[in-house]
Amino acid sequence: MKTDATRTLLVTQADLRSIVEAVGLDALMDQLIHALSDALRGFDGSVTEVRKREGFMLDHPRQPGVLEWMPVMHRGHTVTVKMVGYSPLNPQEHTLPTIIATNSLYDVRTGHLLAIMDGVFATALRTGAASAVATRCLAAPGSTVLGLVGTGAQAVTQLHAISRLFPLKQVLAYDTHPEALQSFAGRVGFLGLDVRPVSLAQLEAQSDIICTATSVAVGAGPVISGHELKPHVHINAVGSDLPGKTELPRAFLERSLVVPDYLEQARVEGECQQLSPNKIGPDLVTLMKNPERYEAWRQRSTVFDSTGYALEDQVVTELLLEHAEQLGLGTPVALETIGGDALDPYSLLRGPTSSPAQAQPLELRRAARA
Amino acid sequence: MKTDATRTLLVTQADLRSIVEAVGLDALMDQLIHALSDALRGFDGSVTEVRKREGFMLDHPRQPGVLEWMPVMHRGHTVTVKMVGYSPLNPQEHTLPTIIATNSLYDVRTGHLLAIMDGVFATALRTGAASAVATRCLAAPGSTVLGLVGTGAQAVTQLHAISRLFPLKQVLAYDTHPEALQSFAGRVGFLGLDVRPVSLAQLEAQSDIICTATSVAVGAGPVISGHELKPHVHINAVGSDLPGKTELPRAFLERSLVVPDYLEQARVEGECQQLSPNKIGPDLVTLMKNPERYEAWRQRSTVFDSTGYALEDQVVTELLLEHAEQLGLGTPVALETIGGDALDPYSLLRGPTSSPAQAQPLELRRAARA
Repeated sequence: MKTDATRTLLVTQADLRSIVEAVGLDALMDQLIHALSDALRGFDGSVTEVRKREGFMLDHPRQPGVLEWMPVMHRGHTVTVKMVGYSPLNPQEHTLPTIIATNSLYDVRTGHLLAIMDGVFATALRTGAASAVATRCLAAPGSTVLGLVGTGAQAVTQLHAISRLFPLKQVLAYDTHPEALQSFAGRVGFLGLDVRPVSLAQLEAQSDIICTATSVAVGAGPVISGHELKPHVHINAVGSDLPGKTELPRAFLERSLVVPDYLEQARVEGECQQLSPNKIGPDLVTLMKNPERYEAWRQRSTVFDSTGYALEDQVVTELLLEHAEQLGLGTPVALETIGGDALDPYSLLRGPTSSPAQAQPLELRRAARA
Repeated sequence: MKTDATRTLLVTQADLRSIVEAVGLDALMDQLIHALSDALRGFDGSVTEVRKREGFMLDHPRQPGVLEWMPVMHRGHTVTVKMVGYSPLNPQEHTLPTIIATNSLYDVRTGHLLAIMDGVFATALRTGAASAVATRCLAAPGSTVLGLVGTGAQAVTQLHAISRLFPLKQVLAYDTHPEALQSFAGRVGFLGLDVRPVSLAQLEAQSDIICTATSVAVGAGPVISGHELKPHVHINAVGSDLPGKTELPRAFLERSLVVPDYLEQARVEGECQQLSPNKIGPDLVTLMKNPERYEAWRQRSTVFDSTGYALEDQVVTELLLEHAEQLGLGTPVALETIGGDALDPYSLLRGPTSSPAQAQPLELRRAARA
């Protein structure tokens, strides 16, 4: 992106809407799947430093949440930090998404905040793309039936992303919240797929691919029984994001190839919590670098343990910023007090307006950059 | 602060300028010193959870830097996260401050980003206030001569803050960068004090209080000799912020009462790196809760090991936001994609503008809130 050493580019809801209008949701998802595949295949730990996310446990009244930071550095270039909140009661109690996030991009040469953008959309998009990428490597060829356990916000992009890579004939939906289940077909109507609410038993028995994306409480899992699954089923377990929160039965995990997105994190927060280290399969990068090594597993049961990987946030942030840049979107804001005397923290704030930097209109305004 | 569940309040350089105009720099510093003293005295670890800062080392060409996150939670209320970059070559190479930061405030009930504000000014302000608070407890009564080793951006607020609590008669300044030294008297001219560039030996021999706020390279310290110091000298060592970066001679530290702002962090990044645990004094909270216990040290040498404490960022962020709120400043922005269907990450971005949330003008604009 073009950078301004003293301004921060805000990419807001309105800008994302313009990007979606210009690019199209399908094209955007395709581009993200492509970019993420490239980033995983080409991952080099000496170039990209990914940190395990850390955060605060939030004492919500009935079900705990978290507020976490997910930092990743592209050495010599940028640091991307997603701040992400997981608040399972948000939809019912605050009419807000369970997952709220913002993604920030910093210039490593100076520490300057280059851009800040919404991460709600970006997170849903990249979580879907990550499942699609894993599913392409691990699901049985000819998979046409997708089951969704949990039909909230993340299910929308799980379905969207996987539908871009598999010719889905049927989508089976299950949720313990009747409202979420009822509204799901409408929310994914834009895909023109056959979406049916079914019992959990039916979903397990008939799905080639399953995505679990639930807000199951800590200790209350698993969310599927694992009894009647197809032998070749591939499951994207998306919900795990807290110590103690898991969605899949341990016995099923133990007989399956379990691919964590980021091992160190999945052992703490993912399905991998349930497994001894020798039962855990390759991580997503290893899988993507050597897909042929794991091809036989397409006929057997496999799991993508998706806890959320900061590399995915880096890729989606860069993609959306590139579009914003190309379309002349985003608002440059003089957020940080920089641009005056570098040795004087008061220089821009004190005394009469006289220096050129101070004489500029400092009100927020949309830049005319077309 | 008044909160909007779907907007984020931006507090920019321009807003801070308006706050400074309305409140005055002296009053702002006095308020901060007062609020910080209260927060330290009243600190309760079961209410406030402070995290040690973590970050990335930045491979700058000749001198490493860091980009770090400093999170603190006021349980049940808010999380404050400062993202802060330390880039020692910024002033010379990019005409940017060494320390660049933004402070963000999150609602722990929902994970929503309530506000984001400049942290360059806030950091300088709170680092000055922290030194003032420590100096009030540890310096000899009647201290009138302040020595500044390192006359960059942080020296401005060190001097400003301490001048609010001590009737300074003379300010002695020393810097290895001639330009920084030359411009210093001008930058602090608003204080009306007698500021003199002196040799390091002179500064050490004559100062009652010293602040070291340098960008000395890792392993290149100490920045003072420690030979001819006054027996009652109090030193605020502000520059330590990296493993291996220290400013004071070990022998001096060993004979002085060393008060770290945050022990766990100071052991890794502060002067306390040089000390065995039994040589480290009380932390700033302990000192502030029991000042009488350490009163005898006013006649002996003392050190405030200031690595930067997330609690200070919480206090300054809250103070500045309170002023922004009272003055009707700041710009509410629809940054996060929230406010539509909580279960649909695409709801605000796809299809024709029809819902009330979408019908709102989403362009950034200054809110008329007076």
